[in-house]
Amino acid sequence: MLTVFGDVRSGNCLKVKWLLDRLGHDYRWVETDVMSGGTRSTDFLAVNPAGQVPAVVLEDGRALAQSNAILGYFGEGSAFVPVDRWDRAKMYEWLFWEQYSHEPYVAVARFQRLYAGKTAAEIEPRLMERGRAALERMEAALADRDWLVGSGPTLADLALVAYTRVAHEGGFDLAPHPAIRAWIGRVEAAFGIG
Amino acid sequence: MLTVFGDVRSGNCLKVKWLLDRLGHDYRWVETDVMSGGTRSTDFLAVNPAGQVPAVVLEDGRALAQSNAILGYFGEGSAFVPVDRWDRAKMYEWLFWEQYSHEPYVAVARFQRLYAGKTAAEIEPRLMERGRAALERMEAALADRDWLVGSGPTLADLALVAYTRVAHEGGFDLAPHPAIRAWIGRVEAAFGIG
Repeated sequence: MLTVFGDVRSGNCLKVKWLLDRLGHDYRWVETDVMSGGTRSTDFLAVNPAGQVPAVVLEDGRALAQSNAILGYFGEGSAFVPVDRWDRAKMYEWLFWEQYSHEPYVAVARFQRLYAGKTAAEIEPRLMERGRAALERMEAALADRDWLVGSGPTLADLALVAYTRVAHEGGFDLAPHPAIRAWIGRVEAAFGIG
Repeated sequence: MLTVFGDVRSGNCLKVKWLLDRLGHDYRWVETDVMSGGTRSTDFLAVNPAGQVPAVVLEDGRALAQSNAILGYFGEGSAFVPVDRWDRAKMYEWLFWEQYSHEPYVAVARFQRLYAGKTAAEIEPRLMERGRAALERMEAALADRDWLVGSGPTLADLALVAYTRVAHEGGFDLAPHPAIRAWIGRVEAAFGIG
């Protein structure tokens, strides 16, 4: 059976869980606590030398890491990966943008507030600034469309909803972003996110 | 004709140039200077609202950003994207890791030294630490293999060589990494990087 190493507080890990659930895959979830060093153990580093969750291990022992690469692997051939070559490229554009320009700010601010015990005043202003810029870009992109790419939900929506839906926990205000708020509802419904 | 907006000092932009050259694509290169605000102009933001180079624009006006998504788009169907589904997933694992765990340290330290005028002592120690960790991970991965994925050069090698080959400009020492040094030579030869 497929094994998923993940921390349920991490949007990167939940993305993978949501896709596997939505596509009806059976798997064993091994809760791997980032805060207490679960990703630094010798056993875990043998699975993923990068020391990051999520990581999945196939029945034959082969391991794959990086949340969005895992989404791509399991999503391939499903309705959540566009058949059109251009749309697929645009989906990957959003996936890379998520990891470079959204997650390092929106998710990291949340992590520092919720799990590292920092107060709002202790969060580096640059983190909040860049996180707000990422949300503004999403609001603009979603102003005239229901989904980030093409005419239906894709892995881009799934990846970006993971930390956007809990952005308030990092101190980001979604009130000025009605397009994002409506989109979150659509993505949660499309992927069965409770 | 294809248009590429890029800054020749940026490995992210050079990746795209190298692949297009290697695959024999014609394109017009529009030099876009990050330092002087070239990526913040109204014209450029109309191409890429994320305000980042590289970005490519097809003849019909459609635009695509994110270096590794651009590599994926043009690389599809070439010898540099594995046909095997698992190998393709592992290639994307490296591409996402590059943007999350390598570029933000190895490339940023170089940028700060070469272009932002910082001295070695002014670079945040965390940047150097994480950059070194990224290089150590690559050294381990390349100890017993010629290429990062499968049995030939892929987009993963191309993406990772971009900043690894100039890591010394950011203050990283490749002397203790013989496997990386040999691999750089192989990747440069495979992609015709001069």
